[in-house]
Amino acid sequence: MSQFLVKVFIRLRPSVLDPAGEAIKSAANKLGVDGINSLRIGKLIETELEASHENEVKEKIELLCDRLFANNVIEDYEYQLEKK
Amino acid sequence: MSQFLVKVFIRLRPSVLDPAGEAIKSAANKLGVDGINSLRIGKLIETELEASHENEVKEKIELLCDRLFANNVIEDYEYQLEKK
Repeated sequence: MSQFLVKVFIRLRPSVLDPAGEAIKSAANKLGVDGINSLRIGKLIETELEASHENEVKEKIELLCDRLFANNVIEDYEYQLEKK
Repeated sequence: MSQFLVKVFIRLRPSVLDPAGEAIKSAANKLGVDGINSLRIGKLIETELEASHENEVKEKIELLCDRLFANNVIEDYEYQLEKK
């Protein structure tokens, strides 16, 4: 069994509004930081898991993303994996 | 002025408990996905901003991270920037 480190990036789909991101964007302007054209908030899930090969990790992560991590209706996911 | 794409990763400090991450970890076990040693949930903030040079972007992002994006008491941040 090998140990893998996986980073999952979960983003709202481009067509979905992000009111929290908009709030931060306008707070940034009030703080004097200008020039922000867009700002979106997503999730970062980092997990360490054991598996015998890379394909097993991919299967596990895709199942977890589809069923637990992301809401497929409004979110997209992407992941990077690294053998430790 | 150039356009920069910045990805900010915000993580709970290692000493801070992550009950939401623990809940997902145990839900993953119930789903039949075993071998997960750790799972932590963080934030991903992606922003597009204008600035005249890279140092200006770094200054802006560090100010935003310290004041708006992250809670310094319990979170750490890291960022990557890319010129568009």
